[in-house]
Amino acid sequence: MVELEPMEHSRLLDETESLNSNHYQSTFNDPDDDDELLDISDGKSRHSKRGIIDLTQGSSLVDTFEPLAPGINDKYEDFYTIDWLHDKNRYMQRQKKIRNKRKQSCWARFCASIDDGSGWLVVLLVGIAAGSCAGIIDIGTGWMSDLKNGVCRKAFWLNTEQCCWATNNTGFGEIDCPQWYTWAEILGIQEQGTVAFLINYLFFVILAVTMALMAVMLVRVFAPYACGSGIPEIKTILSGFIIRGYLGKWTLIIKSMTMMLAVAAGLSLGKEGPLVHVACCCGNIFSYMFPKYGNNEAKKREVLSAASAAGVSVAFGAPIGGVLFSLEEVSYYFPLKTLWRSFFCALVAAFVLRAINPFSTDHLVMFYIDYDNPWFVWELFPFILLGIFGGLYGAFFNYFNLKWCRYRKTSSLGNYAITEVIVLTLITAVVSFLNPYTKQNTSELIAKLFQNCGPEDEFNLCDYQRNITDTDETNWPGATAGHGIYHAMWQLSLALLFKSIITVFTFGIKVPAGLFIPSMAVGAIVGRIMGIGIEQLAVNKPGWTFFDSCKPNEPCIMPGLYAMVGAAATLGGVTRMTVSLVVIMFELTGGLEYIVPLMVAVMISKWVGDALVHEGIYDGHIKLNGYPFLDSKKEFIYTTLAADVMRPRRSDPPLSSLTQESMSVEEIENIITETTYNSYPVIVSAESQRLVGLVYRRDLTRAIATARENEEGVVSQSKVYFSHHLPRYAPPGTPAPLKLVNIIDACPFQITDQTPMSTVVEMFRKLGLRLCLVTHNGRVLGVITKKDVLRHIAEMDQQDPGSILFH
Amino acid sequence: MVELEPMEHSRLLDETESLNSNHYQSTFNDPDDDDELLDISDGKSRHSKRGIIDLTQGSSLVDTFEPLAPGINDKYEDFYTIDWLHDKNRYMQRQKKIRNKRKQSCWARFCASIDDGSGWLVVLLVGIAAGSCAGIIDIGTGWMSDLKNGVCRKAFWLNTEQCCWATNNTGFGEIDCPQWYTWAEILGIQEQGTVAFLINYLFFVILAVTMALMAVMLVRVFAPYACGSGIPEIKTILSGFIIRGYLGKWTLIIKSMTMMLAVAAGLSLGKEGPLVHVACCCGNIFSYMFPKYGNNEAKKREVLSAASAAGVSVAFGAPIGGVLFSLEEVSYYFPLKTLWRSFFCALVAAFVLRAINPFSTDHLVMFYIDYDNPWFVWELFPFILLGIFGGLYGAFFNYFNLKWCRYRKTSSLGNYAITEVIVLTLITAVVSFLNPYTKQNTSELIAKLFQNCGPEDEFNLCDYQRNITDTDETNWPGATAGHGIYHAMWQLSLALLFKSIITVFTFGIKVPAGLFIPSMAVGAIVGRIMGIGIEQLAVNKPGWTFFDSCKPNEPCIMPGLYAMVGAAATLGGVTRMTVSLVVIMFELTGGLEYIVPLMVAVMISKWVGDALVHEGIYDGHIKLNGYPFLDSKKEFIYTTLAADVMRPRRSDPPLSSLTQESMSVEEIENIITETTYNSYPVIVSAESQRLVGLVYRRDLTRAIATARENEEGVVSQSKVYFSHHLPRYAPPGTPAPLKLVNIIDACPFQITDQTPMSTVVEMFRKLGLRLCLVTHNGRVLGVITKKDVLRHIAEMDQQDPGSILFH
Repeated sequence: MVELEPMEHSRLLDETESLNSNHYQSTFNDPDDDDELLDISDGKSRHSKRGIIDLTQGSSLVDTFEPLAPGINDKYEDFYTIDWLHDKNRYMQRQKKIRNKRKQSCWARFCASIDDGSGWLVVLLVGIAAGSCAGIIDIGTGWMSDLKNGVCRKAFWLNTEQCCWATNNTGFGEIDCPQWYTWAEILGIQEQGTVAFLINYLFFVILAVTMALMAVMLVRVFAPYACGSGIPEIKTILSGFIIRGYLGKWTLIIKSMTMMLAVAAGLSLGKEGPLVHVACCCGNIFSYMFPKYGNNEAKKREVLSAASAAGVSVAFGAPIGGVLFSLEEVSYYFPLKTLWRSFFCALVAAFVLRAINPFSTDHLVMFYIDYDNPWFVWELFPFILLGIFGGLYGAFFNYFNLKWCRYRKTSSLGNYAITEVIVLTLITAVVSFLNPYTKQNTSELIAKLFQNCGPEDEFNLCDYQRNITDTDETNWPGATAGHGIYHAMWQLSLALLFKSIITVFTFGIKVPAGLFIPSMAVGAIVGRIMGIGIEQLAVNKPGWTFFDSCKPNEPCIMPGLYAMVGAAATLGGVTRMTVSLVVIMFELTGGLEYIVPLMVAVMISKWVGDALVHEGIYDGHIKLNGYPFLDSKKEFIYTTLAADVMRPRRSDPPLSSLTQESMSVEEIENIITETTYNSYPVIVSAESQRLVGLVYRRDLTRAIATARENEEGVVSQSKVYFSHHLPRYAPPGTPAPLKLVNIIDACPFQITDQTPMSTVVEMFRKLGLRLCLVTHNGRVLGVITKKDVLRHIAEMDQQDPGSILFH
Repeated sequence: MVELEPMEHSRLLDETESLNSNHYQSTFNDPDDDDELLDISDGKSRHSKRGIIDLTQGSSLVDTFEPLAPGINDKYEDFYTIDWLHDKNRYMQRQKKIRNKRKQSCWARFCASIDDGSGWLVVLLVGIAAGSCAGIIDIGTGWMSDLKNGVCRKAFWLNTEQCCWATNNTGFGEIDCPQWYTWAEILGIQEQGTVAFLINYLFFVILAVTMALMAVMLVRVFAPYACGSGIPEIKTILSGFIIRGYLGKWTLIIKSMTMMLAVAAGLSLGKEGPLVHVACCCGNIFSYMFPKYGNNEAKKREVLSAASAAGVSVAFGAPIGGVLFSLEEVSYYFPLKTLWRSFFCALVAAFVLRAINPFSTDHLVMFYIDYDNPWFVWELFPFILLGIFGGLYGAFFNYFNLKWCRYRKTSSLGNYAITEVIVLTLITAVVSFLNPYTKQNTSELIAKLFQNCGPEDEFNLCDYQRNITDTDETNWPGATAGHGIYHAMWQLSLALLFKSIITVFTFGIKVPAGLFIPSMAVGAIVGRIMGIGIEQLAVNKPGWTFFDSCKPNEPCIMPGLYAMVGAAATLGGVTRMTVSLVVIMFELTGGLEYIVPLMVAVMISKWVGDALVHEGIYDGHIKLNGYPFLDSKKEFIYTTLAADVMRPRRSDPPLSSLTQESMSVEEIENIITETTYNSYPVIVSAESQRLVGLVYRRDLTRAIATARENEEGVVSQSKVYFSHHLPRYAPPGTPAPLKLVNIIDACPFQITDQTPMSTVVEMFRKLGLRLCLVTHNGRVLGVITKKDVLRHIAEMDQQDPGSILFH
C-alpha cells in the first residue's frame, strides 16, 4: 500500500542531482545491483524490494525459515525504510544455518567461531580506523590552519606549535619565533609595518578562499554526501533508512580531506560532528568485510551505533560520553550487546588517537582542563543565567539557521553552492583576520577560554596585576584585571557577535561543517566574560556577603569554569543533548566536581530552548529534508485511533485486495495497472474479507511475467491461486491455474481499527515496522504505513504533513 | 486464556507464608482492596484484573479514551504482570484530560504545571531520600561494626575512627588509642593477655550473633520481603510484575535497619545491593505522592528506574555508573526521558550523601584511590589472568550458590531460617575474629587493598624495607618486601578461602545481603597477592625484559591497581555486568588511565563466566524463584512459529470463544464454569471465526451477575449481545437481551500463526504485552500469553518450563 509518489522522488532527485548527480550516480550506484526497476509512472519508480524471495531462485516466502540461497542479498532500494523484524528473522535463519553447519566439520566450526567473533572484530577495526582518521585529520587541520599565517622554515610540514617548540609561545595571534616565517617574511619584508600586515592579510584571505574552494569542489565532484555535519542523516539511517553511498568510501575520503580544508579555511565550523560521520563511514566499510553485518541492514546498524560512539569519543576524548551520545542522540535501536561493543569501540578509538598524539600532549583532547577547585553554591545563579543564555542562543540559532536552510532549499540560492561558500569564506576571512580571537583556530580559542590564568600566561586575557610569586599554576589567586583584560573583553565581544551571526549562515553550506565547536565558542566567550566580571567583583568588593567564602590568596572565581559551563549551555541549547553532553564535559575535567554546574546549565538551557523552538537542530534538519524519522524521544500525546489514520480513508474507495482463489491473471494485472499501491492484501474471499497475507506489487508483477513466459498454459484467463492446494477437479477447457502461494508474506502485522494511535506509534517505533494492516471484526479495512504514521504525527503537531518525503 | 494454575499459586504462597504469611498479609494487603476474589478452583484464585472498566461505575472499555471516573484505580492483582501499553494509554487519557482542563481556569493551569513538573520533583525527592538513607545506613553500620570490638569512652555513639581521630590509626585489626575501650578493658582487664583476648573474642561472637538474630527476627516479623539483595526482584518488578509490599514503607524501614545489623554482624555480605532496594522503596513511596506515577504502574517504573540509579550512585559514589547500571542491569523499559531524570536523581543522591559525609572524608566513597601512575602493556597479561580468575570464581559462586538456594527452597532447611542465620553468623564470627583481614569490615578491607603503600603506612601489608625518604605518598617506589608482607599474604590467602566459601552460603539467607562487597573482596585479595608477587619480581629481577619500563626510584607495579582489577573481574564474573561495572570503577579513580585494564579484565571474566555458567547471579535467582522475567538481553535464536507455541495445542480441543450475538446467558455461564481461562475471544459467528475482541472472565462474570440482579428480564435464556446494535424486532416472548459490548477489549493484539516466534518474543518484550491472539486466514485459532512465551523459551533452552510460576 505504500503509494508511489513520483513528485516527491523527483524532488529528492533534484536535491541530489543539483550536486552533480551524474558523477554521484556513476560512483555510488552499486554496479552489481542489476535489479530491473519497474517502469510505472515516472520512468524510475523505486519499489520496496522485500527480497526475502527471489523468484528466479524459487525460494519461498511462506517458509521464512529456509535459508536464503547464497548470493541473494536482501537489498533495499535507495531512500526506502528497512524492515527491522524481517532483517532480524533473516539473521536468525543465518545463525541457525551456521549452527547446523558447525556440527559438520572442523573447518565449519572454525568459520562459525570466526563469525561469532566478528562482532568484536569489526568494532575493533572500526575503533582503530576512527582513531586513525581522527589523528590524521587533527594533524592535517593543524598544519593547514597555520599555513594561512606562514610556513615553518625548518621544515614546511611542521605547524606553528611544532615549529616553535623551543620558544613555547602560547600567546594569541602574535607569533614570535625565529623558525616561523610569515608570508611577508617569506616575500622578504622583515619589518612589522603596514605592508607586512597587508601582505599577511592578503595571503590569509587568499589561502582561506582557496582552501574553501578546494573543499567545495571536492565535495561537489566526488562526494556530494560529504557536506554538512552528517548527524541528521546518520540519525535517519540508524532509524532504518537507506541512503546509498552516504557512508561509502568516497564519502569517507572526501569528507576527511574537505574537513581539514574547511576548518583550515577558518570558516565558523567544527570537525566534531563530521568526525561522527567519518567514523560511521568506517563502520559501514568494515561491516562489508563480515557477511553477518554487511548483508543485513539491521545488524549493520549495530556497528554504526558503535561507530558513532567512536566518533564522539575521538572528537572529545570522551569514550563514555561517546557511548551515551550514541545512545541518547543518534541511535534508534540500541540493544545492550551494542552498549558494551560501542564502549569497546569508543575506547579503542580513543586509545589509538592517544597513540597518534596529534596535539603532542599527554591529553586526549584540546580542551583538557587541570583545575579542580571547588565552586560555591551562590555561583549557581550565574550558571543559571548562562543556561538561560544557552537556551536563548540555541533557539535563535535553530530558528534562523533552519529559516536560512529552507530558503536555500527553495530559492535559486541552492544552485550557487560554490559561490555561496566562496562569499562566506571571503567575509569570514576578511573579518576574522582583524580580531585575534577569531583569527585563531576556534578549538584553540575554546581551549584557551576554558583554562584559568596561571602566573606564566602573559597574553591579554591573563593580564592581571600580579604581585604574588606563587608559581603553582593551578592555584593562582584572582587579582585585579589589567588593561589587557578589558581590551580582550572588547575583542571577545566582537568575536562573539561575529561568530553567532556567521555560524547561522555557515551550518548547511556544501562543505563538511559541524556545529559543536562554533556553538561552544559562543558559550565559552559569554561564560568567560561573565566569569571575569564576577572575578573582578570578588576582587574589588571582597566585603560582599557571598564572597565571604573566598579566602584571600586562594583562587575563588574561576573564569575558565564559567567558560566551560557557558559552552555546555549553548551546545545544549542548539543540540538539546542532555546526559551525553554533561558526561562529555565531565570527561574533559575528570572529576565529579563540576557536574552540578554543568548539569544545571544544560538543564536550564534545554528547558528554555524547548520552550522557544521545540526541536534540536538535528531534528530540525531531519524535518527540513523530509526524512522518515520516527522520533523515539517524543511522546505521541494524541488520542486518535488507527481508523483515523489508515488508508483508504472513510471517504475513499475501499482497499484493492486480491482474493485467494477466485481471480484471474487478467483481473490481477488490471488491479496492478489501475492502482499505485506497493502491496496488496490477499483475502479469503470478497464476502468474508478475511486476511490471508500480503503480497508485494513487485513480486506479483515479476511472478506473473515469469509464469507467462515459462509456464505452459498460463494465459490471461488462468485463475490465480494464493493457496497451497489447487482444486482437484478442473472443468475441461479451463486454462492452467497459476499457483502464487510462494510470494505471500503470511505474517503481516495486523491491528484492529479501534487501536489507539499511541499504541500504533509504539509498534512502529519499537518493532521497526514498515506497514501494518487494519482490520475490523476480522475483515481487512485498510493499511497504515510508516509514512502514514509520520504524516499523522506531523498533522497532529500542526506541521506540514507533505514534508515527509520518503518511504 | 491465562490459565489458573492453583498448584503454582499454592507453591508461591508456601514460599511467602513460610515467612510469616499472616502478618505479611495483614500488613501489606491493601486494606481498601475490596475486590471479590472469585472462587473457582483453589478458593483463592487470582485473576488478571484489567480494571479499565469497573462495571459498577458503568465506564466503558470500548471507549478507551473516556477518562476514568475518579477513584477507580487501575490496580493489578498481586503476582501478576502489568499491561504496559494499556497503562500508557491510560496515561495519555490522563494527560488529555489535564490539557483540556488547563484551558478552564488559572487554578487548573497551576495544577497542570505542578503535574508537569512532578516528574522532576519526584526524582528530586527520591534522590534526597536515597542519599539520606545511605548516609544514615553508612553511619549506623560503621558504629555497630565497631561495637563488636569495644566502645568509645569519650562518647559511646562514636565509631572507632571518630573516637580515635587524633591518633589517626590506620592499621589493621589492632586498635591503639586511649579513648577506645575494648570489651576486656571495660570489664577491667587492662593487660593484653589471653584472658583479654578471650573476653574480646567472646564479646565479638556474642554481639555478632545478637545482631544477626535481631536482623533475622525483624525481617521475619515485620517485612519478609526485606531479605536478600532485592535486585532480582527489582529487575522483575521493573519488567512489569506486581509484588505488593515489596517496595513498601515497612520494607524500607526494616531493610535499612537490618542491613546495618547484618553488616555489623560481620556476615560476608554487602550493603550495596540492598541500597538499590532501599532507593527503590523510596521511589515507590514518593511516587504515591503524585497521582501521575502512583496510579500508573508503567509510569511508576520510570521513577523506580531512576531510583535504582540513585541506589548504585550512593553505594559507590558513582552517579554515571548508577545510571548505566540501571540501564544495563536493572531496567526494562528505559525511555530517554528517564535517562536524564535518572541521572539527575543519581546526582542529587550522591550530593546529599556527600553533604552527610558519612566517612568523614572529602570523598564520596570508601574505595577512593588517588594514584594515577601509568601501567604497562605487558601488565595486560596478569590482568587477563585476573579476568580468568574472576570468570572462574563467578561460575563457581553462581553454580554453588544457586544449588544451595535450590536446596534451601526444596528441603526442610527453608523452615529453619533463623537457625540458619544464627549458625552462619556463629561460624563467621568465630573464624573471622582470628584473622585481621576477616575481622575488619569488608569494605574497609577492600579500601585498604585498593590503596598503594605509602611511606607512612606501617601495617603488615605495607611492611617494605624502606630506605628512601621520599614523603610523596602517591609516588612511593616499590621496595623489597619485609617479613610482614609475607605474613600478610598468608593471612590474606586464608581470608580468601574463608570468604569464597562462606559467601556461597550467606547470599540467600533471610537477612538483607548484597554480594557486591564480598565478591569484590575475593577479587581484591587475589589481585593484591598477584600484584605484590609481580612487584617483588620487578624489585628482585630488575633485569627482566618487561621490567625495562620500570625506572629506578619511581613506582612501577601498583599492587592496588591489581586489587582493583581483580575486584572488577570477580564482580563481573558473578553479576555479568559490563559497561556499568567499568564505569563504576572508572568513577572511583576519576581517570581514563585504568579503563583499559578494567575493561580487559571484565570482558575476559564475562566470557569465561558465560562459557561455564551461562547466567549471572541475578538472572539465576529470578529463574530460581520462577518470576516471569522476559530477558531483553538474550536473543531468541530459535526458528519456531507462533503456531507451535499458541494454546490450545494442535491436539487439544479448540478454543472456547464467545460469539457476538448468538449465545445465551446460560451458555456463557456454562463456558465460564467449564473452562479455567482468564479471557475469551469474542467472534462474529462460529462459522466465520472472525475476531471481534477479547473479554475478560472477571468482567464477564461480574457483568452477568450485575445484570441478573439489576436488569429486569435478564434470565438464563436471554441472548447476550457483544455488539452496539440490538436486533430491532425481537419475536414476542423472547427474554430481554443483555448488551455487553462495554466489556469488550476491542483492540487485542493479533498475529498470524505463521509469525516467527522471534518476532513474537520481540513484541512481548518491546511492547510489554500480556497476551496476543493467533489467527489463521482471519480465523481465531488460539492465544499466546507471556507465560507461554516464557515457557517456550525455557523449553527451547532445555530448562524446566514448569519453573515459570506467575502470570
